Amino acid sequence: MEASVVVLFHSGYGKTESLARAVARGAGSVAGVRVDLLSVAEVDEGSWAALDAADAIIFGSPTYFGSISAGMKLFLEGTVDRWIDGPRWKDKLAAGFTNSKTMSGDKLNTLFDLAAFAAQHGMIWVGLDLYPGWHTADPAASNVRTLPERRPVVTGGDGDGSSDLNRLGSWFGAMSQANSDEPADITPPASDLATGEHLGQRVAEMAVVFVRGRAVERSVA
Amino acid sequence: MEASVVVLFHSGYGKTESLARAVARGAGSVAGVRVDLLSVAEVDEGSWAALDAADAIIFGSPTYFGSISAGMKLFLEGTVDRWIDGPRWKDKLAAGFTNSKTMSGDKLNTLFDLAAFAAQHGMIWVGLDLYPGWHTADPAASNVRTLPERRPVVTGGDGDGSSDLNRLGSWFGAMSQANSDEPADITPPASDLATGEHLGQRVAEMAVVFVRGRAVERSVA
Amino acid sequence: MEASVVVLFHSGYGKTESLARAVARGAGSVAGVRVDLLSVAEVDEGSWAALDAADAIIFGSPTYFGSISAGMKLFLEGTVDRWIDGPRWKDKLAAGFTNSKTMSGDKLNTLFDLAAFAAQHGMIWVGLDLYPGWHTADPAASNVRTLPERRPVVTGGDGDGSSDLNRLGSWFGAMSQANSDEPADITPPASDLATGEHLGQRVAEMAVVFVRGRAVERSVA
Amino acid sequence: MEASVVVLFHSGYGKTESLARAVARGAGSVAGVRVDLLSVAEVDEGSWAALDAADAIIFGSPTYFGSISAGMKLFLEGTVDRWIDGPRWKDKLAAGFTNSKTMSGDKLNTLFDLAAFAAQHGMIWVGLDLYPGWHTADPAASNVRTLPERRPVVTGGDGDGSSDLNRLGSWFGAMSQANSDEPADITPPASDLATGEHLGQRVAEMAVVFVRGRAVERSVA
Repeated sequence: MEASVVVLFHSGYGKTESLARAVARGAGSVAGVRVDLLSVAEVDEGSWAALDAADAIIFGSPTYFGSISAGMKLFLEGTVDRWIDGPRWKDKLAAGFTNSKTMSGDKLNTLFDLAAFAAQHGMIWVGLDLYPGWHTADPAASNVRTLPERRPVVTGGDGDGSSDLNRLGSWFGAMSQANSDEPADITPPASDLATGEHLGQRVAEMAVVFVRGRAVERSVA
Repeated sequence: MEASVVVLFHSGYGKTESLARAVARGAGSVAGVRVDLLSVAEVDEGSWAALDAADAIIFGSPTYFGSISAGMKLFLEGTVDRWIDGPRWKDKLAAGFTNSKTMSGDKLNTLFDLAAFAAQHGMIWVGLDLYPGWHTADPAASNVRTLPERRPVVTGGDGDGSSDLNRLGSWFGAMSQANSDEPADITPPASDLATGEHLGQRVAEMAVVFVRGRAVERSVA
Repeated sequence: MEASVVVLFHSGYGKTESLARAVARGAGSVAGVRVDLLSVAEVDEGSWAALDAADAIIFGSPTYFGSISAGMKLFLEGTVDRWIDGPRWKDKLAAGFTNSKTMSGDKLNTLFDLAAFAAQHGMIWVGLDLYPGWHTADPAASNVRTLPERRPVVTGGDGDGSSDLNRLGSWFGAMSQANSDEPADITPPASDLATGEHLGQRVAEMAVVFVRGRAVERSVA
Repeated sequence: MEASVVVLFHSGYGKTESLARAVARGAGSVAGVRVDLLSVAEVDEGSWAALDAADAIIFGSPTYFGSISAGMKLFLEGTVDRWIDGPRWKDKLAAGFTNSKTMSGDKLNTLFDLAAFAAQHGMIWVGLDLYPGWHTADPAASNVRTLPERRPVVTGGDGDGSSDLNRLGSWFGAMSQANSDEPADITPPASDLATGEHLGQRVAEMAVVFVRGRAVERSVA
């Protein structure tokens, strides 16, 4: 194993969890990377061990009333021992994702909340390296489709661009939008889940780079 | 005249200007309210007089690379004399709107930039009092349609909710999304323009309330 | 009674509560204003009645790890019924304050969290109309001291400016800094408490203006 | 040379430039790292070449009216070609610093502005891994002093903690506070400059790790 990634999430109704599973899938697609998927509702001693050992932690929270959920924040406040006695999470990679029912929905502020937390721990923030989708009347004109991506562009949808990767236009982390009258097994849509997968893959690849770079550092020293 | 509102905007390609015109229309629909629409590119002495006399100023900026445009910020920095010698804009109402090509597009951060500016001047921030739209698979289930609005719900579009008021889910101010391959005369779409109109109307109505309340204050004193 | 103001706070160690008491004192100094001071730990049916009836709500939270406390956020999430069935808090005034142990300490982000919440409810955000203090080597040069304030400038301290009003430089709301090795009965310092008092007074005065303005509106209609 | 770092700043009155010089000194203290210090006022073709070749870019801006300066933002908007034709700055490290005359002064929002920009380019954000200082009545109790730092704790000052590293409590980037009645050759104070130096050193060290890690990646491929 070259690197370990933990995807840690809070989910109220299963929709942020769907996104979390996609992020974990993406991270797990990278060779040599171990992935743990943890809900804040089920954190035990083993979870803390995985978190402490992780090279990267990807945090996911619903956006409720314009900021991080209380459920997620409560967990984050519980990391204070890692901070005081350390900081023990310093130099880990960090990233974030969030879900809400609307397109914009103040989700950016939740990502700021998560990133401000990570910065206090001395973590390094990895965002989403994807052009935005869904911003052209002519679907063929969207630059996300002409980007030489490894990951094939999502297809399906109604051809209006809503099936693009990064269809909401987010870079600080991955955002998804889940219809309020649909259950978590069919929403958020495939495009948002693929965007989450991309974030997971990116963070895992970056974790491998950092782990390798530090190994060189030690061998040089 | 009971109250005066200035809509002050920067626009790079005409799209934020389209939204600005909608905001001004909404403000102008309120009886007894005088509205000035000013571009930062054409500010002259008369503009400053209108700004200084205004009961409310609504600021609009494109979101470029995740924050307020340089063009708008340059204007805001030029208000420093009003701040030092005063603060002369204290207790005016303020509000904001922004456009970008994508759905979320970090537009919230531009509204934070504008609101942080307004707060430094001692202004009072009025947001958007609209339920969000476009968050249901079944268009009839969207709560924006069941809200007892004075303003009739926007119709047309493709029936998927994209023609709802506040279709992007924003409350700190009005957001619009303009396709990058369409000109400013047909984008942002009617729903976003109607959302801007609503913001303008709301701010103008609040300005009237505020002006009347202060008149009572003076008559009591 | 002309207007009612609720000061609603969460406090982990009593320091945000000290600031909350100062804010309530300031609001209570305005003639004709009723003030309720409520801790989120003790909210009961009477508290909800006071909140629903309030003309202004001032929210206070510690800043923990760069954002709103879980304790405060949990309360805010519990207001969802007021939102769905309404929005019932629409057009109330809102304001915010926050405490942490350091000078900056990412406190601004907590104020953004609170303001984003308030905006979703359609509330109107009132910030702090105070020049900043503590930014000159020569205490006599600080503009806070030359401002024609009604409230006398705080004195005492060591003459370096740390006893100025708004000594931390905040406008989105009131900030205080409480030493981590001192108890809540002597920290945050007098200057920060006076700044909180000023915020309370300002919000109460604005609440009176809005209430009077709306009364005129009704008498005209 | 193992890695290259560019410190890119805008400065209105020389104070942010003083901080920029400190950041560059810190970066230059790391063996094998080339550092360029660039003002946005003097960017030429060679500057763009240095930026395009850099492994890390550290952005610095004054905080004016609560957000990034127009001078800095104008430069950032000029990077649009690197974004469209690429994104060519993807996977570079990024960091930020800001100066204002007050302790808090909404500086966090400027760091958010810079980080949102960097995220849109696909850059990776490195913050400040320092415990906060200046938060105890008893200077000996401050945890910054008990941290096993390589860099000796700043001494001097008046023994109240204001000479601590990270005296303002910032992690998203480095903050400095410069008295408004003192020139840039004596302000911001030594503690803030040392904090900036630490940021520069940290980013340079991380750039070396990252470059080495990617070299392994290539040799493995």
